[in-house]
Amino acid sequence: MTARRLHLNAFLMSNGHHEAAWRLPGADPFVNHDAAYFTRLARTAERGLLDSVFFADSPSIMGEVAQRPTSVLEPTVLLAAMATATTHVGLIATASTTYNDPYNLARRFASLDHISGGRAGWNIVTTATLDAARNFGLDELPAHRDRYERAAEFVDVARRLWDSWRDDAAIGDKSGGTWAVPERVRAIEHSGPYYRVHGPLNTARPPQGHPLLVQAGSSEHGRDFAARHAEAIFTAQQTLADAQAFYADVKRRGAAAGRDPEQIKVLPGIVPVIGSTEREARALDEELDRLILPEHARAQLAGTLRLDPERLPLDAPLPADLPAEDEIEGAKSRYTLIVKLARDENLTVRQLIGRLGGGRGHRTFAGTPEQIAATIEHWFTAGAADGFNVMPAVLPSGLEAFVDHVVPLLQARGLFRTEYTGTTLREHYGLPRPPDGRTPPLAGPVRPVTALTGGKAGR
Amino acid sequence: MTARRLHLNAFLMSNGHHEAAWRLPGADPFVNHDAAYFTRLARTAERGLLDSVFFADSPSIMGEVAQRPTSVLEPTVLLAAMATATTHVGLIATASTTYNDPYNLARRFASLDHISGGRAGWNIVTTATLDAARNFGLDELPAHRDRYERAAEFVDVARRLWDSWRDDAAIGDKSGGTWAVPERVRAIEHSGPYYRVHGPLNTARPPQGHPLLVQAGSSEHGRDFAARHAEAIFTAQQTLADAQAFYADVKRRGAAAGRDPEQIKVLPGIVPVIGSTEREARALDEELDRLILPEHARAQLAGTLRLDPERLPLDAPLPADLPAEDEIEGAKSRYTLIVKLARDENLTVRQLIGRLGGGRGHRTFAGTPEQIAATIEHWFTAGAADGFNVMPAVLPSGLEAFVDHVVPLLQARGLFRTEYTGTTLREHYGLPRPPDGRTPPLAGPVRPVTALTGGKAGR
Ligand SMILES: Cc1cc2nc3c(=O)[nH]c(=O)nc-3n(C[C@H](O)[C@H](O)[C@H](O)COP(=O)(O)O)c2cc1C
Ligand SMILES: Cc1cc2nc3c(=O)[nH]c(=O)nc-3n(C[C@H](O)[C@H](O)[C@H](O)COP(=O)(O)O)c2cc1C
Repeated sequence: MTARRLHLNAFLMSNGHHEAAWRLPGADPFVNHDAAYFTRLARTAERGLLDSVFFADSPSIMGEVAQRPTSVLEPTVLLAAMATATTHVGLIATASTTYNDPYNLARRFASLDHISGGRAGWNIVTTATLDAARNFGLDELPAHRDRYERAAEFVDVARRLWDSWRDDAAIGDKSGGTWAVPERVRAIEHSGPYYRVHGPLNTARPPQGHPLLVQAGSSEHGRDFAARHAEAIFTAQQTLADAQAFYADVKRRGAAAGRDPEQIKVLPGIVPVIGSTEREARALDEELDRLILPEHARAQLAGTLRLDPERLPLDAPLPADLPAEDEIEGAKSRYTLIVKLARDENLTVRQLIGRLGGGRGHRTFAGTPEQIAATIEHWFTAGAADGFNVMPAVLPSGLEAFVDHVVPLLQARGLFRTEYTGTTLREHYGLPRPPDGRTPPLAGPVRPVTALTGGKAGR
Repeated sequence: MTARRLHLNAFLMSNGHHEAAWRLPGADPFVNHDAAYFTRLARTAERGLLDSVFFADSPSIMGEVAQRPTSVLEPTVLLAAMATATTHVGLIATASTTYNDPYNLARRFASLDHISGGRAGWNIVTTATLDAARNFGLDELPAHRDRYERAAEFVDVARRLWDSWRDDAAIGDKSGGTWAVPERVRAIEHSGPYYRVHGPLNTARPPQGHPLLVQAGSSEHGRDFAARHAEAIFTAQQTLADAQAFYADVKRRGAAAGRDPEQIKVLPGIVPVIGSTEREARALDEELDRLILPEHARAQLAGTLRLDPERLPLDAPLPADLPAEDEIEGAKSRYTLIVKLARDENLTVRQLIGRLGGGRGHRTFAGTPEQIAATIEHWFTAGAADGFNVMPAVLPSGLEAFVDHVVPLLQARGLFRTEYTGTTLREHYGLPRPPDGRTPPLAGPVRPVTALTGGKAGR
């Protein structure tokens, strides 16, 4: 048996994860539109043999436009541009099940997987903001439970669409004049509460069978969803104890759902602020925090907590009468994390903003490469993580420092690969390629398409 | 005043536009999934100084999977992959207004425009097949008129989303800590019969302001739509007289809608089959036609005409009792074109299939480079075209022959550019960049979001 190896994902975002990174002297505040910049980051990740790069996304402006680069390129399109200039690193795009159609989205991911030779991953999110809802004809955020029910049906439809072409469907028989064997391309005739989709997809089964399925919600519903569908989980955890509890919980839920817990990779976020000495790291951390404008950050915090910013005086603690998680229809787990952090550490709003500025709830860690490698090893061996979602506070420098100084230490400790042994994203994460169905033709007549049973009206 | 110059678009499709091109001895039947192959084609187009390359699209399988490469990559994703390896050629993707959401689609085109430095174009189609409708919860194709009404509202919303960031919104003021000026990023608060979209977009105004807007429907509704919204029109025309009539008609409609007719570029399709002698060209044409399997082609024709294939014996003319165009809810103009072609030339089904095999209704022209250049000049100067949608029967060879042998003749005749004078797609087509709105803030209170007035239900 080979040693257990950790997995590393680089979470890319404009000038870095610290909200003030774009204000640093060396920063170019317009890299958010620059595909060549992100391609260089992906090549840096590839030089470091990382499993994947990743973009978050939401179909609405996230945060305050004054505060940081809030204009973002759509991730499937951006990752396609990055695919051709990279050869190994995985390419994970976030897309919402609440505000997409399964047919179109399944097809975009299949296309990205074909273009990249099997390196596509989908971070499945249900989108927790009212702003997004209002861009799609809704006046209110759909209820949390409904969003996850819709997501489950969406993913089921997407899988069946990817399987609607058998792997051996397209034979390209020039002399016989048969490009694909019709019996190997099958309609899915899905009819459920949220979607009716006839199929088949018009893009053949992708190289990975299905793109890697990633999930990033940590509420009760989110964990259940992850346990059933996700192959990798991004999560924000502030303490080792919380991370261990989360890790054990989702593995247990996965096993209860009949899955192999080893095929669910848990990747907590870590925001490394790297210096060659501890002092240098802290100086960078402090410089960044000084660049936060508290009014902007407070407005964003107020949005997340669904409060009037007036109710958050900067030098007072959070109001005592905040609602409980089960009254929140937005991002439940992030809400709880922020409130718990403020209460546990007795932080004022100003202090809380400083803590969130780096990672918006992810664990910020300022230190030397040795310290960071030691923490990673500790979490990895203590049952808290199968790997990490690396969120450099400052880009590109933070990723370069991680690749050049932390990765070699992880390799020396025998924790991380010293070369890519596969070419697909699934291979990097040690996850199997789902076999195609090869289901026999339906017996009996094809079920007629029946009336709409719910969900979406005609368009 | 500079001489009127023609515009050339290369319509890319797997092994070429002839349905049997994939069966030729030199053909690789799996190029349809190969982004590097399409990138080479785009570079060939760029070597020939062409205005743009283009992909058709529909969210369903088009044609018979046995017949030809029917698995296709989603065009915005594919063109993003091609953008980074090209510098000038425009990148036009087809996307349906019937089966997309304005917010998501406007954002993908804005992203492609940012990634390509202002080279994105959108071929706006309403999608005329029942197969597509059934992939989006519908049992029937939405009525033709409804599709175009929806398209008009969709395009209006998309334009306003692109304009929701002023060109000068993002200032990146590092010392002041203002990334974008909030008053320059405005909600659109659209509420119409089909869509309610609050905005603003979460991607800043693209380099071209709006991507180039192209349209490809030629029915009455299609022409009206084009006259109001399109800046370039792809059209299938079989004869010079038909093309002249179409050209005059859409320019007149454009003027009637208050537009400058010169800002509506009409590009008929041409399927050149190029040989160094006429005989060589005809031999290639005949070889291709011999490779058509009539059963497959008949099934596809039956689909277009919405007939049982049994009603199309190969050696008989089309049935006499076909419905008139106004009874057709699918692709009206293509239907009429095919029926008219068969009747005018008294073709059997087998002969009709031969004529359509090359261009599915576009004008196939087998000849020498001189003959093709002369035809292009004739149509261009006789008021039938502002340029051409070049649809090589065989790829890559047909595009290479066009670029290497036809383009120099067009340049020698003073009809075509000898270098790119701009870098954006709008500049290539001689079309202005739409100014940003700079609309003053709304006076009075913001209109409340009201109940759904129609269209799409919540999701
Ligand atoms: C690393 C990470 C990245 C995430 N990225 C996104 C994202 O891009 N878009 C999104 O809507 N939610 C994203 N989420 C999820 C939200 O933070 C939030 O957890 C979710 O929307 C609601 O899930 P919950 O209510 O189950 O916690 C991400 C979460 C994590 C941990
Ligand atoms: C060159 C060309 C390309 C076209 N590409 C597409 C396409 O990719 N997808 C599509 O749905 N319709 C496409 N169309 C339009 C259809 O052929 C048809 O005209 C349209 O769906 C219905 O328009 P009409 O009923 O107004 O004629 C194209 C038309 C032309 C001339």
